[in-house]
Amino acid sequence: MNKKFNAPQGLLLVVSGPSGAGKGTICGLLRKALPELAYSVSVTTRQPREGEVDGKDYFFKTVAQVKDMIFRGELLEYAQVYGNYYGTPKPYVQQLLNEGKDVLLEIDIQGALQIKKVFPDGVFIFVVPPSLEELRARIYKRGKDSEEVIEKRLKAATSELGYAGEYDYIIVNDVAEKAMQRVLTLLEAERYRAGRTYFIVDQMIHPEK
Amino acid sequence: MNKKFNAPQGLLLVVSGPSGAGKGTICGLLRKALPELAYSVSVTTRQPREGEVDGKDYFFKTVAQVKDMIFRGELLEYAQVYGNYYGTPKPYVQQLLNEGKDVLLEIDIQGALQIKKVFPDGVFIFVVPPSLEELRARIYKRGKDSEEVIEKRLKAATSELGYAGEYDYIIVNDVAEKAMQRVLTLLEAERYRAGRTYFIVDQMIHPEK
Repeated sequence: MNKKFNAPQGLLLVVSGPSGAGKGTICGLLRKALPELAYSVSVTTRQPREGEVDGKDYFFKTVAQVKDMIFRGELLEYAQVYGNYYGTPKPYVQQLLNEGKDVLLEIDIQGALQIKKVFPDGVFIFVVPPSLEELRARIYKRGKDSEEVIEKRLKAATSELGYAGEYDYIIVNDVAEKAMQRVLTLLEAERYRAGRTYFIVDQMIHPEK
Repeated sequence: MNKKFNAPQGLLLVVSGPSGAGKGTICGLLRKALPELAYSVSVTTRQPREGEVDGKDYFFKTVAQVKDMIFRGELLEYAQVYGNYYGTPKPYVQQLLNEGKDVLLEIDIQGALQIKKVFPDGVFIFVVPPSLEELRARIYKRGKDSEEVIEKRLKAATSELGYAGEYDYIIVNDVAEKAMQRVLTLLEAERYRAGRTYFIVDQMIHPEK
């Protein structure tokens, strides 16, 4: 080992999973449990809704601005939804991490896998429902859509489950509070990872640095 | 992913570190906290001491038997100490893991790194003292040796610290009870690792298996 080890950067925590798995609920509980956790503010081209604050709810941009960001590689991931762009600004996330802040990203599977290519050292969590029956019940409960649409969504979510193996951790969301506690546990464990703790040993061996 | 995923094997937990770091104390506390944790019984060629039980304290073997085991690749690691062989029997550990039991190994650094080659999926923990001053104090406290011998040991331990980066986790042993709790935390987190949890998702997607 002859790399130089400094005190670690913040940790990027990516929470992902199929719709209906409950990643939003878990992230909400996480942010309550860890108020110091930074979270990424997304870029969007859609119009601000009443009460939304630029730089807090979203960074509101024009289509030309977002296309520029894509061109310059400044988005960690992006997608078009109903004609509007949504994306995660890389310099913003990078800056938070450089400041030593842990950053939470709640994101769909395609977005998470894009981010993994840029931040392989992030901690990637895949949230799964306890069973397909439960997933079906949750999708039914949420949607006001026809049975046909719901079945289509369920099928999509089931096929998305296959991506779980690409992640670092799989968290079963039986009870949201318990699932959140599991995330807290693995977050603590990740702080003991050799790659994040070696600087302590390095300082012991080379106090002159 | 087209591998077949079965319910996971037991988890191999390897606790290592320089002498004076306190790995023995931590392992003792771990075994109290987790009585279901299996631990490896070592092979040795030394004579049984009074009260020692074959298969419980050690597997007592002749030198010829141990040399046979080495030849057949049946030892995960071995070392000669004061003319006696000590080793970790691979079939024994493998059988415990196959039965789904988690296995604890407390072992020196050379041994741990040998084992990592055979069981890369094990969880390798490196225990470090909170500071070199504390390490010196502990080595002094323990030994009845001359200052010269103690300084030699301290130097060896310090140079061994450099291996910390080869491990999965680094645990600072400031207070043994706290250090043990940290190990419990990372052990729980390791159960959520995608490689160990994917079978749940697999059973959801392919219930017919």
